[in-house]
Amino acid sequence: MTQLFLEDIREGQVFGAPRYEVTSENIKDFAGQWDPQAFHLDEAAADGSFFAGLAASGWHTAAITMRLLVLGEFTPVNGIVGAGVEELKWHRPVRPGDVLTVRSEVLEVRPMRSKPGFGIVRMRTTTLDAAGEPVQVFTAPLVVRARAG
Amino acid sequence: MTQLFLEDIREGQVFGAPRYEVTSENIKDFAGQWDPQAFHLDEAAADGSFFAGLAASGWHTAAITMRLLVLGEFTPVNGIVGAGVEELKWHRPVRPGDVLTVRSEVLEVRPMRSKPGFGIVRMRTTTLDAAGEPVQVFTAPLVVRARAG
Repeated sequence: MTQLFLEDIREGQVFGAPRYEVTSENIKDFAGQWDPQAFHLDEAAADGSFFAGLAASGWHTAAITMRLLVLGEFTPVNGIVGAGVEELKWHRPVRPGDVLTVRSEVLEVRPMRSKPGFGIVRMRTTTLDAAGEPVQVFTAPLVVRARAG
Repeated sequence: MTQLFLEDIREGQVFGAPRYEVTSENIKDFAGQWDPQAFHLDEAAADGSFFAGLAASGWHTAAITMRLLVLGEFTPVNGIVGAGVEELKWHRPVRPGDVLTVRSEVLEVRPMRSKPGFGIVRMRTTTLDAAGEPVQVFTAPLVVRARAG
């Protein structure tokens, strides 16, 4: 695993990640802990709901995305550290049987005035289904340590 | 539990929620599944990290927030359904011993052109520590069913 410093990261770089298979069991397990609503917990209740069938919590999709990001190709030396999310969109609900992966693209690299020796990498992270269609997209400013600093 | 329709929700309304105690065990458990980085998993490694001590994953803070929202006072008839997040900021890392709660304020209520019978409730949800200071803030457009539709 290459430990990336700020100077190693360029606008336009793209980083891949492994895949994750979503099951009805892991949808219900996450929801039971963090988003206990009927349409994430029970097939019969979900059929008559807004989602018309069992759907993963959007926060589950976000958590899967973070796991894939951490296990993926983008490996900053200080870890993946974000101060927030500029915008996050769920394009469609994730369903049992979906196999997800993540693609991250560097939008901008700049030094951080408030924290010398670090910089901000603005990254757009897209979570894709098996057909390559986006299920979630977000942009986040990440804090990355500089080699010179 | 009052089931709220779009017509029951007004700009400026505030909804509370129960509390959640964060422990080093639940920080590590969440991180092991969804954000397996040393500063979320191991006290000794975390001491020398960017976070200078064990810190919850930001996605864990988000998941706790969703749980508290679902268990709280805001109870739309079709459940809490979001299409995304406009902006999410982590004001500080959440630590073992933090006791969190959630306060949600309605910023805007409007009918949904693309989906008759439903409306959008723009809600700002602030996650507060025991001192009442924000640890996370996000704004999200939620889909709520109208009584007349």
